[in-house]
Amino acid sequence: MLDNIRVVLSHTTHPGNIGAAARAMKTMGLSHLYLINPRYFPDLQATAMAAGADDVLQNAVVCSSIDEALQGVVFTVAMTARLRDISIAVKTPREAMPEVLQYAATQPVALLFGTEMSGLTNEEMGKAQLGVNIPAHPDFSSLNIAAAVQVIAYELGVAAQNYTSAVPQIVPATHERIEGLYAHLEKTLLEIGFFTTQNPARLMQRLRRLYSRTRLEDEEINILRGILTVTTEYNARLKARYQQEHKDV
Amino acid sequence: MLDNIRVVLSHTTHPGNIGAAARAMKTMGLSHLYLINPRYFPDLQATAMAAGADDVLQNAVVCSSIDEALQGVVFTVAMTARLRDISIAVKTPREAMPEVLQYAATQPVALLFGTEMSGLTNEEMGKAQLGVNIPAHPDFSSLNIAAAVQVIAYELGVAAQNYTSAVPQIVPATHERIEGLYAHLEKTLLEIGFFTTQNPARLMQRLRRLYSRTRLEDEEINILRGILTVTTEYNARLKARYQQEHKDV
Repeated sequence: MLDNIRVVLSHTTHPGNIGAAARAMKTMGLSHLYLINPRYFPDLQATAMAAGADDVLQNAVVCSSIDEALQGVVFTVAMTARLRDISIAVKTPREAMPEVLQYAATQPVALLFGTEMSGLTNEEMGKAQLGVNIPAHPDFSSLNIAAAVQVIAYELGVAAQNYTSAVPQIVPATHERIEGLYAHLEKTLLEIGFFTTQNPARLMQRLRRLYSRTRLEDEEINILRGILTVTTEYNARLKARYQQEHKDV
Repeated sequence: MLDNIRVVLSHTTHPGNIGAAARAMKTMGLSHLYLINPRYFPDLQATAMAAGADDVLQNAVVCSSIDEALQGVVFTVAMTARLRDISIAVKTPREAMPEVLQYAATQPVALLFGTEMSGLTNEEMGKAQLGVNIPAHPDFSSLNIAAAVQVIAYELGVAAQNYTSAVPQIVPATHERIEGLYAHLEKTLLEIGFFTTQNPARLMQRLRRLYSRTRLEDEEINILRGILTVTTEYNARLKARYQQEHKDV
């Protein structure tokens, strides 16, 4: 179950934090670390702070994009300092980790952490199905990133001890399939002229939010993309017919 | 409530850990840090790792003994890497933190953390009423000390959100009063010749374990010490009479 969980750190600045995160992971039985464009890695400070979790660092997968890091993942949880997030639904670690384990029982799951200074970008948040906020003091709510990894890993460990499998009700779609749907959707909306009076980026964010709540199944992606294809074709036919009837235009 | 809670770090080696612990505390609304003989403090590395929790470091109380750090405390919780501890009862953070808050509602409480390498000594464990073990992977169970502070502070924060006051049933005795009892007890057992065939240190540890479970009330300490006084006097009278009757001995 824990073997299906990857911790993804995006654009980490301080290598010591990568090492401390690796140690935090290993204390709770997590071993798969993914690093998106870390500033310094590998690094002596990372090794020093790992304090024996060297294997986690050695097996870490360095990626050049978030899509590469989320390859094959069916459920992505993004850490956010905001209690409410415009781009995603937000839960506490205690609420979210049992859900993480349900997915991880059969499929890869990602826990996504942003940079030390500014967390995750809106674009990165939009790749996740769920946000998680560690409740903290309103005047000083900024946890160190490795400390945040420790809290989340700890909650996962406690949840794993109390784990009971729910009957799987859906076959969730992978990250690539979901991104494929969004790309197709955006292209189609552009083609049919939907964006003329709208802000495309903001609208796509709202649509991501909508679909992230539904936990799309693989088969549903087929249906939605089928609709998009037909929409474009219908639109193309309309255009063709219009051009045929108004040859002078 | 959280204002009655002090975090006590014993003989911390790396100043960075002190700073990271201060930051972890502040994210969860804790502000009282006590340091027993830290190797380096104050220190630039501590300040760097505090990342804005400078006030916690500035107000930190540096002590030269554990008894000084526990002055006025009525309930001490000691972190232990062992699931069972010979010197004390052990609970999980989730079980223990609501209990901590009940005491902290009216009286000072201490959360006691040992050194990076070897944790707390048996003597230090014996000063606590309860042990807390953060559940971790059996093959790699050593959390960084600041990470442990973060997990415990996080559990406290969650417990505080769900806090409901229980009717106070006892007036707990302070640390000094309890230590006074143990000293009196040890002295008395020595005087009456109880230690002749026993290992005094081990026996005192067992007695500490026994009394730590009871959460001694202030009035009960009076009663127990009264018994000890009478025991000594009785013993002294016996001795005196024996010497009177056997003047030649």
